[in-house]
Amino acid sequence: MVEQLKFEILTIGNELLIGKILNTNAYWLSKRITSLGGRVTRIITIEDNVNEISSTIRDCLARKPDFIITVGGLGPTFDDKTLEGVAHALNLRLEVNKEALDMVRMKYESLGRIRGEKIELTPARIKMATLPEKAKPIKNPVGTAPGVLLEVSGVTIICLPGVPEEMKAIFEEHISPIIRERSKLVFYEKSLRLENIYESDLAPIIDQVLSINPRVYIKSHPKREEGISYIELHLSTSNESLEECLRLIDVTVSEIKKRVVERGGKVIEIPAKE
Amino acid sequence: MVEQLKFEILTIGNELLIGKILNTNAYWLSKRITSLGGRVTRIITIEDNVNEISSTIRDCLARKPDFIITVGGLGPTFDDKTLEGVAHALNLRLEVNKEALDMVRMKYESLGRIRGEKIELTPARIKMATLPEKAKPIKNPVGTAPGVLLEVSGVTIICLPGVPEEMKAIFEEHISPIIRERSKLVFYEKSLRLENIYESDLAPIIDQVLSINPRVYIKSHPKREEGISYIELHLSTSNESLEECLRLIDVTVSEIKKRVVERGGKVIEIPAKE
Repeated sequence: MVEQLKFEILTIGNELLIGKILNTNAYWLSKRITSLGGRVTRIITIEDNVNEISSTIRDCLARKPDFIITVGGLGPTFDDKTLEGVAHALNLRLEVNKEALDMVRMKYESLGRIRGEKIELTPARIKMATLPEKAKPIKNPVGTAPGVLLEVSGVTIICLPGVPEEMKAIFEEHISPIIRERSKLVFYEKSLRLENIYESDLAPIIDQVLSINPRVYIKSHPKREEGISYIELHLSTSNESLEECLRLIDVTVSEIKKRVVERGGKVIEIPAKE
Repeated sequence: MVEQLKFEILTIGNELLIGKILNTNAYWLSKRITSLGGRVTRIITIEDNVNEISSTIRDCLARKPDFIITVGGLGPTFDDKTLEGVAHALNLRLEVNKEALDMVRMKYESLGRIRGEKIELTPARIKMATLPEKAKPIKNPVGTAPGVLLEVSGVTIICLPGVPEEMKAIFEEHISPIIRERSKLVFYEKSLRLENIYESDLAPIIDQVLSINPRVYIKSHPKREEGISYIELHLSTSNESLEECLRLIDVTVSEIKKRVVERGGKVIEIPAKE
């Protein structure tokens, strides 16, 4: 069986920790990585603090994922500390990266042309081109701060900006092709709606079904809608081909159906949304 | 200056890691804890796996927060492994807790009365009353699985179910009074909309303003709306009284205004939503 590529996502920013904004970036990345056949094993949110970032990156590296993706903290302002934290974690110097500086300069030149004025490369702007040594800048098709790619003892560290459109654009254009090339797996999921059965009665059924189908992941969610309780069951699997995914899910669904119906329950297949 | 109570939130569940659902639980808890004057220093999402839960709880404890709040994995099914993980991390035995068993039994008795049938206390149901020794069950006003409270060498560990209505109900009824009693701080925030100024020009201004007002936290978010770029600035502070919060924020806002206007920018105060 082919191993799934493992990912840890590190979202950096106090606005997430004070409940100012929902972590839609981690959600979007998890969904995309999963659909590319990868496996997100951990999502961490921490403050914009160099020591926190540095010690967390070290913890992530110690677990040896294939990828660490950081989100946020690449901009020009005082609280954009991701690259300083990454450099500190890896004992690398920070230096102005020529390629990154060209990217930043071109952005401000084109902005300047639009506004009909010359925009200087201030220290705050040069900061966005100041990367850990050995890092490679990744072009930002939407905003100014380049993404960053760094290979460290078998782990690929990728730093993306926190502005969702910039994060998504860099990921789609530059990161997803890298993952697609390295991942050998396809992800598939299916949802069922179960009625007339308690979650606690379902538990032993799922245990049985899982022991026969260990490659299928099953998660149950008790729900209520207009006063009616039901259970939503999510089945998913990652395999070398879509055919194999479909086969495994079909087998599992029919085994669940048989057992749930035996207990007087009802199983409805929920059509895929997208 | 009074220290803020520190919190780490641990959300457990593969559905978060595959991008099936947004982590609205962590978002809601962060907002509530912040408004109670606490400080969330870390949010972690991991798989429903006993070893992962156990090693992560140990890492959390090593950072010595005042509270660790786990969310998810308290139900009756095979993948509800939180309490097993917590017990393992702390070298505690798992045992059926009499008080918790009474809570679970009463839930099923009342459910049974509604459905006109007797509902047995199956092993899956008894599992929800199987807690680490020394733990105290917390009544769940909405669902079946009790919450769990455990004091370990100065850290309060609280385990909440993942179903949002149950999580919120237990938090509001039983946890927020505990935090309110232990926290001595009030949180206050304000937002500004800045126009006609680049984020990179704003950076040194905020550096200056912050050095004069270190107790105010400032975060800038570049935004775009119908083709117009602007910066949203979030200011927040936690202090012993609302008056002190208001005073500090007012001083900071007027210092930002002065400097931004000097550079040709515009500052608009955004009214609070709630």
